[in-house]
Amino acid sequence: MMKHVRVVTPITTKGFRDLSEFKALEGPELTVSHSEIDLGPASIECEYDEAMALPGTIAKVIEAEREGAQAVVIDCMGDPGMKAGRECVNIPVIGPCESAMHVASMLGHSFSFVTVLARLRPMIEHLAEQYGVPGKMASVRSVDIPVLELEQDMDRTKAALAEVAVRAVEEDGAHAIVFGCTGMLGCADAVRAGLLAKGYDVPVIDPVPLAVRLAASLIESGLSHSKLTYEQPPLKPVAGYDMPPLSVASEAAE
Amino acid sequence: MMKHVRVVTPITTKGFRDLSEFKALEGPELTVSHSEIDLGPASIECEYDEAMALPGTIAKVIEAEREGAQAVVIDCMGDPGMKAGRECVNIPVIGPCESAMHVASMLGHSFSFVTVLARLRPMIEHLAEQYGVPGKMASVRSVDIPVLELEQDMDRTKAALAEVAVRAVEEDGAHAIVFGCTGMLGCADAVRAGLLAKGYDVPVIDPVPLAVRLAASLIESGLSHSKLTYEQPPLKPVAGYDMPPLSVASEAAE
Amino acid sequence: MMKHVRVVTPITTKGFRDLSEFKALEGPELTVSHSEIDLGPASIECEYDEAMALPGTIAKVIEAEREGAQAVVIDCMGDPGMKAGRECVNIPVIGPCESAMHVASMLGHSFSFVTVLARLRPMIEHLAEQYGVPGKMASVRSVDIPVLELEQDMDRTKAALAEVAVRAVEEDGAHAIVFGCTGMLGCADAVRAGLLAKGYDVPVIDPVPLAVRLAASLIESGLSHSKLTYEQPPLKPVAGYDMPPLSVASEAAE
Amino acid sequence: MMKHVRVVTPITTKGFRDLSEFKALEGPELTVSHSEIDLGPASIECEYDEAMALPGTIAKVIEAEREGAQAVVIDCMGDPGMKAGRECVNIPVIGPCESAMHVASMLGHSFSFVTVLARLRPMIEHLAEQYGVPGKMASVRSVDIPVLELEQDMDRTKAALAEVAVRAVEEDGAHAIVFGCTGMLGCADAVRAGLLAKGYDVPVIDPVPLAVRLAASLIESGLSHSKLTYEQPPLKPVAGYDMPPLSVASEAAE
Amino acid sequence: MMKHVRVVTPITTKGFRDLSEFKALEGPELTVSHSEIDLGPASIECEYDEAMALPGTIAKVIEAEREGAQAVVIDCMGDPGMKAGRECVNIPVIGPCESAMHVASMLGHSFSFVTVLARLRPMIEHLAEQYGVPGKMASVRSVDIPVLELEQDMDRTKAALAEVAVRAVEEDGAHAIVFGCTGMLGCADAVRAGLLAKGYDVPVIDPVPLAVRLAASLIESGLSHSKLTYEQPPLKPVAGYDMPPLSVASEAAE
Amino acid sequence: MMKHVRVVTPITTKGFRDLSEFKALEGPELTVSHSEIDLGPASIECEYDEAMALPGTIAKVIEAEREGAQAVVIDCMGDPGMKAGRECVNIPVIGPCESAMHVASMLGHSFSFVTVLARLRPMIEHLAEQYGVPGKMASVRSVDIPVLELEQDMDRTKAALAEVAVRAVEEDGAHAIVFGCTGMLGCADAVRAGLLAKGYDVPVIDPVPLAVRLAASLIESGLSHSKLTYEQPPLKPVAGYDMPPLSVASEAAE
Repeated sequence: MMKHVRVVTPITTKGFRDLSEFKALEGPELTVSHSEIDLGPASIECEYDEAMALPGTIAKVIEAEREGAQAVVIDCMGDPGMKAGRECVNIPVIGPCESAMHVASMLGHSFSFVTVLARLRPMIEHLAEQYGVPGKMASVRSVDIPVLELEQDMDRTKAALAEVAVRAVEEDGAHAIVFGCTGMLGCADAVRAGLLAKGYDVPVIDPVPLAVRLAASLIESGLSHSKLTYEQPPLKPVAGYDMPPLSVASEAAE
Repeated sequence: MMKHVRVVTPITTKGFRDLSEFKALEGPELTVSHSEIDLGPASIECEYDEAMALPGTIAKVIEAEREGAQAVVIDCMGDPGMKAGRECVNIPVIGPCESAMHVASMLGHSFSFVTVLARLRPMIEHLAEQYGVPGKMASVRSVDIPVLELEQDMDRTKAALAEVAVRAVEEDGAHAIVFGCTGMLGCADAVRAGLLAKGYDVPVIDPVPLAVRLAASLIESGLSHSKLTYEQPPLKPVAGYDMPPLSVASEAAE
Repeated sequence: MMKHVRVVTPITTKGFRDLSEFKALEGPELTVSHSEIDLGPASIECEYDEAMALPGTIAKVIEAEREGAQAVVIDCMGDPGMKAGRECVNIPVIGPCESAMHVASMLGHSFSFVTVLARLRPMIEHLAEQYGVPGKMASVRSVDIPVLELEQDMDRTKAALAEVAVRAVEEDGAHAIVFGCTGMLGCADAVRAGLLAKGYDVPVIDPVPLAVRLAASLIESGLSHSKLTYEQPPLKPVAGYDMPPLSVASEAAE
Repeated sequence: MMKHVRVVTPITTKGFRDLSEFKALEGPELTVSHSEIDLGPASIECEYDEAMALPGTIAKVIEAEREGAQAVVIDCMGDPGMKAGRECVNIPVIGPCESAMHVASMLGHSFSFVTVLARLRPMIEHLAEQYGVPGKMASVRSVDIPVLELEQDMDRTKAALAEVAVRAVEEDGAHAIVFGCTGMLGCADAVRAGLLAKGYDVPVIDPVPLAVRLAASLIESGLSHSKLTYEQPPLKPVAGYDMPPLSVASEAAE
Repeated sequence: MMKHVRVVTPITTKGFRDLSEFKALEGPELTVSHSEIDLGPASIECEYDEAMALPGTIAKVIEAEREGAQAVVIDCMGDPGMKAGRECVNIPVIGPCESAMHVASMLGHSFSFVTVLARLRPMIEHLAEQYGVPGKMASVRSVDIPVLELEQDMDRTKAALAEVAVRAVEEDGAHAIVFGCTGMLGCADAVRAGLLAKGYDVPVIDPVPLAVRLAASLIESGLSHSKLTYEQPPLKPVAGYDMPPLSVASEAAE
Repeated sequence: MMKHVRVVTPITTKGFRDLSEFKALEGPELTVSHSEIDLGPASIECEYDEAMALPGTIAKVIEAEREGAQAVVIDCMGDPGMKAGRECVNIPVIGPCESAMHVASMLGHSFSFVTVLARLRPMIEHLAEQYGVPGKMASVRSVDIPVLELEQDMDRTKAALAEVAVRAVEEDGAHAIVFGCTGMLGCADAVRAGLLAKGYDVPVIDPVPLAVRLAASLIESGLSHSKLTYEQPPLKPVAGYDMPPLSVASEAAE
């Protein structure tokens, strides 16, 4: 069965994503499309950035469903707009942080996050709790490189990630590694090689590709999010925003 | 010492708040001012509403500090913008849900929330986890009255709250009651009377007055939020919003 | 990329599985093969049955890798032999209970299991703890039908499952449903229809199809289990069993 | 409204407290009175000391209510007699450990205790669990100075506290600091300055002043402890003690 | 090896215990002696009673060691003085609540307490947390009979206990039963018979006999409590009490 | 009363156990018998070994009951076959890991395991969770000596254990030590002496002797495992094994 997954990048920096990165995930039965938000921050590195990204991201999630996507992946490890987005549409809305945490929980006894900045530790720890797997996360470590600088020197980024991943294994007892920023897309092979060179045969999760594949699995399985948890929002005025109408299904129901 | 607390109501429905409600909290050394947001939803009843309220609420938190308030209380039990707001300013930013949960934890073995709509249960349970007190919350019960209808018939609202509070005590083992919507302001005496009539001498927390008093206590104690948790956001473009500059302190530092 | 997933049914009752059930999961890039164990119980309904199934199941997991399968799914919700199997091979070994619990955790605030017999509740609660998601499971309910009788009257089975699922939603606060026995394969549509008829739009997880699709996603992502958690067993005599040699990789290494 | 808070110091060392320390907390609407116990240990540094302090402390809590205080603060971080005291009176009885833990939970992602002796770590960890916030406490560190020596060399005490607080931040991930002994009263500014000098802008909680202000807030809010949790003790003989009769309210009821 | 276990009953009601109850536990290698406290309440039914029992109980624990007992069992399910007692002596001090909770955790998936008064639920829940087994306790139920009335009509007591135990199994999912008051000594057979009559083959723990046998096992194993947790109290004046000197060992060391 | 405890060693290495080790535990009222399994691995050092030990161990548990033993102790810290064994018989089946964890929880604030190989850490952490005491375990450390080499040089084994135990106390905060392999039988005195030499007066648990004594205490108390948790297995064919019939009681019932 043909499946169409939309990736929504919740920042306003043009050119951050090269569409070919998502095309590589396509297959004979899988289409991956992409959009960026119009309203919001240049990058997401704190609670404030994430808050400012929400309205723009939700608009793009609604748009994705209206344009025929069967699932949405939000391209940020803070999973901004994931919950509100699920309320607004009937298709699955996947947060790469949530799906990476759950898959990592299955792949080993414990996992560590390697992310961009130390300040993100409390946010990631809160997400592990909220997603129900706090006992599985060994640590959150960071490479101290801002999001928009990750791609400036990919060799440096990969080397820094590998070094931090080795320390997570040796000092924190990590049995699997998860990238804590979707800007690290494409670095998994290098980091895994760095770990293997030290004798550590552990999985390294690149969250967006995994989230796209999980989205495809949910479409095939006919599964979407529970409407008991994510009931459609009550209709009401929202001052100052020009949001698309909520889900097609709800529109039909009116 | 004189203290100035600003209450920010994070919805755009004019007239929802009667300023006299906050004036009653003032004292010889306490001033309470108030503002409403310009950008956002008419009321907050789901994740979507809350997401849409964030940019407007954060703007008002920043404005409060610039206007000389020494602490901010956010007038909604979802605590929208609390974390992002704390990053943006140096004064305490109090969420009434967080402070009510912690004070209720001190007043009895367990507490229950009585809120407006059943759909809010997952949100409130997540907040209890995130605030570190999941083991103290006995249950979340609702009166099934939308936020903007609470004040239409206060007698009905009070009666419904009292009835649900009694059930929380009898069926869920609640030893304290917390209102799960700040629109229930002023109903505590009636609900406590209803509980006493059944023989239950339990505290009933009206979260906004308590949060204002806690804010004053923090000002007196010279305490504010940890900048290790709530580091100031990195400066970066935010497309589509006209936000006030961040905290006065940071401005001075530039 | 072509993917080959082997399903191992860890019981010795011939004809329990109709191969067409797994063929339906195949696609242009996915092959699903199947085997049953030679040594072990007729069905799995308690700790004793599960213990007796382990050596036979592990043998079939090793055989699967030797025959070229790229992932194994164990066809029982007790996930028998999953951990030991992961030690013995280098390909992913998926337990449908573990993967269903993690996917259900993503689809809603909480999930309930509907299983065959009440006696399985402690086992399933232990698995939820061991897999790291105890806080997400609302309840375990049962239809009181032994495994080998499930298929005798599928209409009765579906009706019983739907009724119990409705009770899990209404009485336990379940926001998603997971089948607690892989013998319930194919009942998800009927149960979901029963829930929708009561107004509950919640996902119903049929664990084996989901596990097969997740296995395919792991193969595509180049992910397998952590060898820090599942290190290969030390070579030693095992009296009384004629086990296949361990993984091909280990053999090459000798 | 005028408020009267009584501080009860649960040790028998005369002159340990200088009343001026509490007078500094008074305001136009707040009176702070003080008493010490007659029966019990010279200082509290272990379970035994705490046990021996209980009858004397409870007597002083009852006396406080009879003398018109509207709230009691127990001046020891073990919160001795707090629970029994709450049973005996109808006014709030505040333990500074409990209130500091809850306020610290609100001020940052995590907090550490800096206390007198290493042996107190199990007691403080048990209190964090009992008060419902175990996940918020990063560590318990100590300065290795007995209680009655704290005031002998306040400069040394402050320097030791600051040094240990810095280590709690750097090695344990603390985002806020709580004094683990009320004998450290008055050291917060020095410790906070020491932390700021290292670049750590984190709150430092001096528990007794905070507890007095919280007590005042509870009086203003008309809140006291739940009588479902702290029901009045049944009347019965207690051999060997000359305790004051229980609360005025109960007396009236007789 | 001969073993001598002292049972300390921490109340001042003379005749509450019939020494023959403890003699029945003796054997060819086990002596059980008994003492009651001189200072404290007539019975223990709340935090206040327990607090008032502590000094007297600790005195009797110290006396037991001085008189040659090799282990002490405290005859009350609140385990009053257990921790302080362990600091004061070098022999094991067993709390029947702690040992019953741990043994019950081994005997079944979950256990329930059946105790005297509903008001004890918070105390027992706190003990389960403090002893490290909160996840094993299904519920606390009560028969609503004060401690000193338990023995007035043993048939009524047994019938009430059996009825409540059955409800714990049926409504709370209890798989084992623990008596929540040591005054229920001798009722286990009757309660177990009542459960069996309903088809429930579950263990019923009578905590004091079990604690005495566990104490004997610790003596045989040469085990006592950790002095890292229970370090001897620092020597200091305690006003108003005439306590025996601390442990013989410490005396010798002086 | 005479008691008969059977120790079942779940490995097939002949001569691993010297019967005199168990005879030393006997007394005037206690007989200890012993058996080894016929089917299974030479030693248990991973999930695979444990899985392969299960059928053989269960057979010996059933045999023990048929031969008149009143309790069984399984001689391995993975507690293999403990749960399945409990289903098959009516006498208590004690796992030394479970009983050591619970007793260690009573003896100090926290305990650490010192075991043979680092790879066992996840298994032991899972057992601590499953047994309900995860919060009590400070760490799992290993001496890196395979099971069958432990006895080759007992002095080296004891020295390694003592060194690792000291590190558990100093670096992990352990207040008690538990041996993580029953092959360390007889090393407790040496390890305790090593700890005392460093000034650490902490208990060291040798799990099998303790389990035998606990088994005797359960027999004396008339306690066995809950049949609600460990219901007898349904009768069904098990291909490829020649198991003894289930418990005598069940046989009688047929």
